[in-house]
Amino acid sequence: MRIAVVAPGSRLDPAIADRTQKLAQSLYPDLSLSFHPQCFLSSGHFAGTDEERAGAFLEAANDRAIDAVWFARGGYGAGRVALGALHRLTDEAAKKTYLGYSDTGALLAALYTCGFRDLAHGPMPADLNREGGEAAIRRSLDYLMTRDPSTLEPDVSSKTPTAAFNITILSHLIGTPFQPDLAGHILMLEEVSEHMYRIDRALLHITSNPLIRTVAGIKLGRCSAIPPNEPDFAQSEDAIAQHWCEVSGIPYLGRADIGHDISNKIVPFGRLRPAPNTVA
Amino acid sequence: MRIAVVAPGSRLDPAIADRTQKLAQSLYPDLSLSFHPQCFLSSGHFAGTDEERAGAFLEAANDRAIDAVWFARGGYGAGRVALGALHRLTDEAAKKTYLGYSDTGALLAALYTCGFRDLAHGPMPADLNREGGEAAIRRSLDYLMTRDPSTLEPDVSSKTPTAAFNITILSHLIGTPFQPDLAGHILMLEEVSEHMYRIDRALLHITSNPLIRTVAGIKLGRCSAIPPNEPDFAQSEDAIAQHWCEVSGIPYLGRADIGHDISNKIVPFGRLRPAPNTVA
Repeated sequence: MRIAVVAPGSRLDPAIADRTQKLAQSLYPDLSLSFHPQCFLSSGHFAGTDEERAGAFLEAANDRAIDAVWFARGGYGAGRVALGALHRLTDEAAKKTYLGYSDTGALLAALYTCGFRDLAHGPMPADLNREGGEAAIRRSLDYLMTRDPSTLEPDVSSKTPTAAFNITILSHLIGTPFQPDLAGHILMLEEVSEHMYRIDRALLHITSNPLIRTVAGIKLGRCSAIPPNEPDFAQSEDAIAQHWCEVSGIPYLGRADIGHDISNKIVPFGRLRPAPNTVA
Repeated sequence: MRIAVVAPGSRLDPAIADRTQKLAQSLYPDLSLSFHPQCFLSSGHFAGTDEERAGAFLEAANDRAIDAVWFARGGYGAGRVALGALHRLTDEAAKKTYLGYSDTGALLAALYTCGFRDLAHGPMPADLNREGGEAAIRRSLDYLMTRDPSTLEPDVSSKTPTAAFNITILSHLIGTPFQPDLAGHILMLEEVSEHMYRIDRALLHITSNPLIRTVAGIKLGRCSAIPPNEPDFAQSEDAIAQHWCEVSGIPYLGRADIGHDISNKIVPFGRLRPAPNTVA
């Protein structure tokens, strides 16, 4: 198994890459995990220019020797990479696994619209910076290596398709060519560091879109590090999600076991598929 | 001339209403300016519940005795009012003028999609709280009373239609039934209190939408109170706007004289029309 790590948005601290590498080797000695040097570049807000980030992504995605592309971290920038990279992907790219969440959801969504079928929401190397972050990294590695069912969000199944997004990121995909077709999917949504009024505004936005209204239902993941609302919003995030589901006629399916934290579970896009590679 | 003030989003400080009233009477003694009591209600984040805010808006909009509806302030909540109010508007409502900006753009957009043709972006009573805010209030009153051409953004004309929006608010309208048809319009965009990466992300979103790509061009208003980007974004807001215009094939038309400040000019939606009422 060969996993390549690239950073489509913000720059990764090289110390995190080292620690991820050590942890991966201790868990899976035969795994080849490589951090593309682009992860450590810097260009203003981003881990290198758009061309450098798209170039690294394409190099990994189009390389027949790579089995999985793991996104290093979120931040912001994956949507810019999607714009510059999609038309340069080859058939080889469609055969591998892609794993990430948060801002990288913009790129996962774009790949999903292109027909890629082995995409998943889940922890990234940068999660190692969280207290107890090893659990998150281990979950992603276990998923990539063995498709261990214990890594999955409980509603993931081979019957009903699923997808997971950061609320703000999905809001910014609505009405664009990269808005994925989620008809019949259980849509799981999570958020971090956004005011309650912004969560409300983004869910109003998302649930107002006619295509989103074709989902099988919405599950709300964790909304963490919410800054104080001024004045107090007086409604919890579940009340908000339930409200917009009711208004839009989308079934509200309760809480999802995802979020910007170490418990963040894996959510494959689409129906659960068998592992694409035989693992020793 | 009778102007009714309602607050579709956040609550207005009664002291601001008093000061606006006094200023209005000193400028236009014959003007009847009334602040709906709903402006001062409070329900969590909002100036009253959705039903109270929609009720006050509908009362003013559907009242034959009212010539113009002036939104008290932004904040957040106008999009929620739009959802609950549009289907209860009468033919009477389509005859009057509506003025506001920022969050109230969500309601202006919805009214524009309903065929209302006397809508304008411009200062609101809450702008009186700014240093020198009298100039902003006076501009809106002059526009409402006389359609004084000096109140208008310089590119407003009877030839090319215009529209103006807060960037974040327009982003949250993309792909919804309330996204206005801006084909052939000069689209003016402004922002306040958003990080540079968020301005970039929202402009990527807006300019990726196929309908937005039918605008005649984009003019960038002022982007004020931008919090420090971590790390430095290394691009100015004009460079960002120019970039996304270039990527999307939308002509970039330079800077617009609008923003969250006292110089914020009036931008009617559509082509400039003559004043709907004879003013004494």
